Amino acid sequence: MGALAAGEKVTRAAVAAEVGLARATVSTLVDELLAAGLVEERGAQRPGTVGRPGTALALSETGPAGIGAEIGVDHLAACVTDLRGRLRCRVQAPAANRGRPAPAVLAELAGLTALVTGQARDQGLHPVGTTVAVPGLVGRDRGIVLRAPNLGWENVPVAAALGPGTVVDNEANLGALAELWLGGHDRLADFVHVSAEIGIGAAVVVEGRLFRGARGFAGELGHVPVRPDGPLCSCGAHGCLETFAGEEALLRAAGIGAGRGPALRAAAAGGDPAALRALAEAGSALGIALSGAVNLLDPQAVVVGGPLADLAPWLLPGVRAELADRVTDRRWRPEDVVTSRLGSDGVLRGAAYSAVRTVLDDPARWIQKDERSQPAGV
Amino acid sequence: MGALAAGEKVTRAAVAAEVGLARATVSTLVDELLAAGLVEERGAQRPGTVGRPGTALALSETGPAGIGAEIGVDHLAACVTDLRGRLRCRVQAPAANRGRPAPAVLAELAGLTALVTGQARDQGLHPVGTTVAVPGLVGRDRGIVLRAPNLGWENVPVAAALGPGTVVDNEANLGALAELWLGGHDRLADFVHVSAEIGIGAAVVVEGRLFRGARGFAGELGHVPVRPDGPLCSCGAHGCLETFAGEEALLRAAGIGAGRGPALRAAAAGGDPAALRALAEAGSALGIALSGAVNLLDPQAVVVGGPLADLAPWLLPGVRAELADRVTDRRWRPEDVVTSRLGSDGVLRGAAYSAVRTVLDDPARWIQKDERSQPAGV
Repeated sequence: MGALAAGEKVTRAAVAAEVGLARATVSTLVDELLAAGLVEERGAQRPGTVGRPGTALALSETGPAGIGAEIGVDHLAACVTDLRGRLRCRVQAPAANRGRPAPAVLAELAGLTALVTGQARDQGLHPVGTTVAVPGLVGRDRGIVLRAPNLGWENVPVAAALGPGTVVDNEANLGALAELWLGGHDRLADFVHVSAEIGIGAAVVVEGRLFRGARGFAGELGHVPVRPDGPLCSCGAHGCLETFAGEEALLRAAGIGAGRGPALRAAAAGGDPAALRALAEAGSALGIALSGAVNLLDPQAVVVGGPLADLAPWLLPGVRAELADRVTDRRWRPEDVVTSRLGSDGVLRGAAYSAVRTVLDDPARWIQKDERSQPAGV
Repeated sequence: MGALAAGEKVTRAAVAAEVGLARATVSTLVDELLAAGLVEERGAQRPGTVGRPGTALALSETGPAGIGAEIGVDHLAACVTDLRGRLRCRVQAPAANRGRPAPAVLAELAGLTALVTGQARDQGLHPVGTTVAVPGLVGRDRGIVLRAPNLGWENVPVAAALGPGTVVDNEANLGALAELWLGGHDRLADFVHVSAEIGIGAAVVVEGRLFRGARGFAGELGHVPVRPDGPLCSCGAHGCLETFAGEEALLRAAGIGAGRGPALRAAAAGGDPAALRALAEAGSALGIALSGAVNLLDPQAVVVGGPLADLAPWLLPGVRAELADRVTDRRWRPEDVVTSRLGSDGVLRGAAYSAVRTVLDDPARWIQKDERSQPAGV
């Protein structure tokens, strides 16, 4: 499954060569995967220059699928991806979730996930689980949101509200996983991923794995001190990155009303001096905080993703200038800061794909479950 | 070997129970280890409440040993530890290494390692390798110091000068490994270890492993920005932690002449107001930089070690106050900042023990090598 996930139109012979198993063994395994609907054949394929053409294999387009759901401060969204990580359907609804009672938010979100689940089934897909992205600290083992200040939530049991097979994770973590799995950066396995909606979140990927920290709270870049005597932050400390580069601070500095995030991008694109100044200063603050992160963690790259990716043209010069000045490793280059190609969809797609990855990671378990759930004789 | 390293007076039966192998298998393995001199018997031991007393086993006191060597800005040192991590001999010499030609420094260090190697052999130990601790960025694969600004070194081939079996590593990394292996903190597997001599270094331990970063340069806490418009640092940036809490800055703030590090501790112990003020301010700066690290990495604890441990009584109040204000995770407690019990010996002991750990990690390789190196018929 891993070899097929990584390749495009792979043959049994190519898989055997890659994983180091006998051709016959691979054929047997492939037959099982074909029978279970995890893999499909895609016609003849000539492997390199010599030999008989093999039959090309690919992960199934009509097999298991993952549901992703996203709770934003001003929107809700849900989507489905297949085993290949491709987006198969997606719905989004504007919503004023700040301070709104959690049960109402979760009921509306359940409606969206039911909608995309139906659409996925119509496309011949089998949803295997749901991952919910939230802007806050989560208790993953219990499926709860511990604290999401920008929603006004404390100890909200999200997974229980959405039914069995639901996992809850921090949006920054899922954005980083999307970058790792679907970002299209070759061999990028050690990076800091920064994203932001109202707050600023980051996630650290080390050797191709998400780094969660001892209690699961790693990545709080928004509360790294940038100017320790700076403005009071919502967290109670002074001069956190969020007070310089969070959406609220940015909109205020640009003279744009609170909650009108999209207007900032438009103002910057239109050359508005206040917006450009606000973004340049936010870029510097982000660069100062990231310098600390890069000096501590020595990643291959910094990836700017999520809604922040839309502002990258104006933020990146400041980010790169601070990193160039402050990173100790002289081999650090400005182009080691990259913008995600997934844009603001990264978090939602990462959520959906993380749900279906469980099948890639352990196909045998899914095959057994699948056999049990089918009527006798099929 | 791992079971014996972790336990005290362990029997064959206890090892079999712990590692899940048959008693007979464990006995065969133990016989091999006894024959190779890696393990020794220490008399009868009653395992719990019932059964025949077993023979207690322990890692050998006269088996393989590791040589540790340390290049400081104002000293050189070497030591030997045995398989149990116990310090068996140690020499130290004051030395003005800043700007001194590297060959002279390395020749003197080789003299010290030869001295302790002889002392180790006199105690029946068999040195298996040397690890050299340096205050700078190292290229471990090539055994060179890439850059050690406080020594004035660039691209110095340290391992080649000290002979085969020599590994070169950053002093902060070795201090952190010492804390992990020998620090005596129960179950401490995720922590940030801060140490300092002239510069300030840190190392990050994650799930019981040293985190090195993509290029091997992780842990540069000394160049995390604390006040971005602050004083110019030796690295070329402004307001790095080192400009507030490095030894030079500390001595200047305390009105003590450059290079007189030990005088600072004495002045603080004597209640000198300038020294106390300088240390309080350095503690705050350290706390600001560590707040960023804790928010990003979510470690179990911060350990203050190396020569910095001697100054902990005066630094820790400021460190703890900043962390209490700035760490997002509300469960973070002041007592999660601890002082290393290894004191300023941690780095050197970590170096020596890391050299002999290679035998713990792969006893079979050492047994084969040992057999080859013995005369025929023995």
